[in-house]
Amino acid sequence: MPQFLNIQEPGFEAAFAAFLTTKREDAPDVDEAVAGIIADVRVRGDLAVIELTAKFDRLELTPETLAFSAEEIEAECGKVGAEDHAALELAAARIRDYHKRQMPKDESWVDEAGAMLGWRWGPVSAAGLYVPGGLASYPSSVLMNAIPAKVAGVERLAICVPTPDGIANPLVLLAARISGVDRVYRIGGAQAIAALAYGTESIEPVDKITGPGNAFVAAAKRRVFGKVGIDMIAGPSEILVIADKDNDPDWIAVDLLSQAEHDESAQSILITDDAEFGRAVAKAVEARLQTLERRAIAAPSWRDFGAVITVRNLDEAATLSDRIAPEHLELCVNDPDALCEKINHAGAIFLGQWTPEAIGDYVGGPNHVLPTARSARFSSGLSVMDFLKRTTLSKMTPEALAAIGPAAETLAKSEGLEAHGLSVRARLDRINKEL
Amino acid sequence: MPQFLNIQEPGFEAAFAAFLTTKREDAPDVDEAVAGIIADVRVRGDLAVIELTAKFDRLELTPETLAFSAEEIEAECGKVGAEDHAALELAAARIRDYHKRQMPKDESWVDEAGAMLGWRWGPVSAAGLYVPGGLASYPSSVLMNAIPAKVAGVERLAICVPTPDGIANPLVLLAARISGVDRVYRIGGAQAIAALAYGTESIEPVDKITGPGNAFVAAAKRRVFGKVGIDMIAGPSEILVIADKDNDPDWIAVDLLSQAEHDESAQSILITDDAEFGRAVAKAVEARLQTLERRAIAAPSWRDFGAVITVRNLDEAATLSDRIAPEHLELCVNDPDALCEKINHAGAIFLGQWTPEAIGDYVGGPNHVLPTARSARFSSGLSVMDFLKRTTLSKMTPEALAAIGPAAETLAKSEGLEAHGLSVRARLDRINKEL
Repeated sequence: MPQFLNIQEPGFEAAFAAFLTTKREDAPDVDEAVAGIIADVRVRGDLAVIELTAKFDRLELTPETLAFSAEEIEAECGKVGAEDHAALELAAARIRDYHKRQMPKDESWVDEAGAMLGWRWGPVSAAGLYVPGGLASYPSSVLMNAIPAKVAGVERLAICVPTPDGIANPLVLLAARISGVDRVYRIGGAQAIAALAYGTESIEPVDKITGPGNAFVAAAKRRVFGKVGIDMIAGPSEILVIADKDNDPDWIAVDLLSQAEHDESAQSILITDDAEFGRAVAKAVEARLQTLERRAIAAPSWRDFGAVITVRNLDEAATLSDRIAPEHLELCVNDPDALCEKINHAGAIFLGQWTPEAIGDYVGGPNHVLPTARSARFSSGLSVMDFLKRTTLSKMTPEALAAIGPAAETLAKSEGLEAHGLSVRARLDRINKEL
Repeated sequence: MPQFLNIQEPGFEAAFAAFLTTKREDAPDVDEAVAGIIADVRVRGDLAVIELTAKFDRLELTPETLAFSAEEIEAECGKVGAEDHAALELAAARIRDYHKRQMPKDESWVDEAGAMLGWRWGPVSAAGLYVPGGLASYPSSVLMNAIPAKVAGVERLAICVPTPDGIANPLVLLAARISGVDRVYRIGGAQAIAALAYGTESIEPVDKITGPGNAFVAAAKRRVFGKVGIDMIAGPSEILVIADKDNDPDWIAVDLLSQAEHDESAQSILITDDAEFGRAVAKAVEARLQTLERRAIAAPSWRDFGAVITVRNLDEAATLSDRIAPEHLELCVNDPDALCEKINHAGAIFLGQWTPEAIGDYVGGPNHVLPTARSARFSSGLSVMDFLKRTTLSKMTPEALAAIGPAAETLAKSEGLEAHGLSVRARLDRINKEL
């Protein structure tokens, strides 16, 4: 049974606070093993990657077969049916359109002192995307990571996807081709992250690594951070649905289950202003769980981490939602736009009952890589910005330097940084001499 | 003596590659001590912070005196002279003007399928800024961290600044007041970071922590990352000057020394297309080092990590510069705009001989918190974006769902995520029934 909480009951605040801090995941401590793998790849390069792939993925590779050949990719892509192919193309086109609008603009201007100021955006030169193998090998993740990188202008884009026992996922390779990925390596784990960060004889290093992965991949990303950029380390998925009684309980139930089926540590929460509706949704969840293909995953997630919270009104729902700062937030209420205005912290908002969260996972357009574990309080989902960086620009004239230089000199002195002041003073003296 | 490299000499590539990977800093491993301090603050709150402050800063505090009172701040600010005060105000106004222009726009649109898509930016609710104590207690850092936060709309902004032996820096407190900081705690070290991240009885937790600090502060920021957002962990400062022979060697020398004087691990590099000019600059550096106040810091920095690199032309300079990806880049050449176009990776660019880097440290307007250690390849300086996060928005109509929903259902099936597909199918069935 999920938790049932009611804001009107005594003890709600304590129960809700405890609910907020419930730990849902015990990541195994693999840091030492990962440190060893990274050191090994740095020293032995290809050889280390090949040995580790033989050991973990039961796959014998050579430097020449680390990457899929063009012919292999062609052959694998040919296995994808027409319907799947068309769906991937539609998703890719919509994701590309959305992310193109995110491209930030360069700016420059001349201020009152005569100084030119501004900034310029530019792409990272090379990026690497990690795609998990096995059950969680999602072609949609390839689109969501690769398309923003290509829209940002990343020149060289590589993917690492483990292929245990040599079995590839044709949809992943097709998604990579549609996204414009340049190279696909059939390697995984910490060794793949190390190879992307430091390079080997056959694998060129990249500047930024994104994408989900298991505990080994997460630990490796943390370790190479600084040498390269990384995206956020994602926790298990979450959904919060705020729904009034004018909804079909079954729709809300499958929406909740669409997160629960990801992972036993996933979390699905319903906040409603109608206790009876809440019970009806819980009942509908139980009914769906009888037949759901992934009920062995969804049932424990819903039982251990699910919640149905009853509030007096939607203002209270918005306040609780901000404390949760959900990754995904569905607003299945009469006036979703009005409620949306009251929400401050959420990764992605889905407005109205015709917008199930799953639309956002695949074809909506916005990115499905979103901040988990309450981090929407301070961070954003993946975007073109993750593959861009900004260079600030300044250009003084003698007049501009004469206007603002003395203040810089004063502050440099007050901070005890003489050379800072001298670099301004040397120029001011020339200006004064020439006047 | 700094290194002298010439691109025309045999062995240049190997020497430059080695130069790029030279480690300049051996951070002491304080991680275990920091883990203990954080755990202590989480359990004992104020009491732990007070005890640790007595131990490390020789300062006895109570829960009531953890923060400066309004009267204390007033009194300290009164000690600042008129010239310093005016310089701080000028710097603050220019930094505010620059950062206001960085505010990103919300967007929303309706696409061909009839779906509303877009995004919305919002500030983090509360931020904490760390300001080092002692020698490196820089009022300019307060402005550079606090003003972007306030421009972004952060409601509650706290500073932690240690005051060893109870001695405060009036300029830091004045900079805090000018920037609109709400609360200044006289605590430092890992205990200050822990208090900001987790809160204590007297210190409210924040969502984002920025600002420089020693090894303890850096380790603590790494550890609380995830619970709160953090900015980059900065390494020692760097400057690269690209200068042709039409420059005063002494100006370039003081520009190089203005980084070298920060830290023995700082790095100053000159790239020039005139070997003789390079030697003249090196000579001018030696001359300035005879009298420079901070020569005990600047001399070893220049000796151990400084470099004068001679190239054949400015195109080669741009190529080497991108491999260095400098934090600060001065372009002291005849046509700095043309050279600027050839640069891809740099934290901040200063164009022309009238723009010494020190202008950017204080009064230029752009932020002086910039990516170090080659991380300008994939990251940007501090900006209002560090205090904002984006929520993506989607709103389907029945027509939009009918148009794109089937593709989502197809992809959900191909990924084995049945409930994802069902959440779309339940709605599509209703639409089909009502048609």
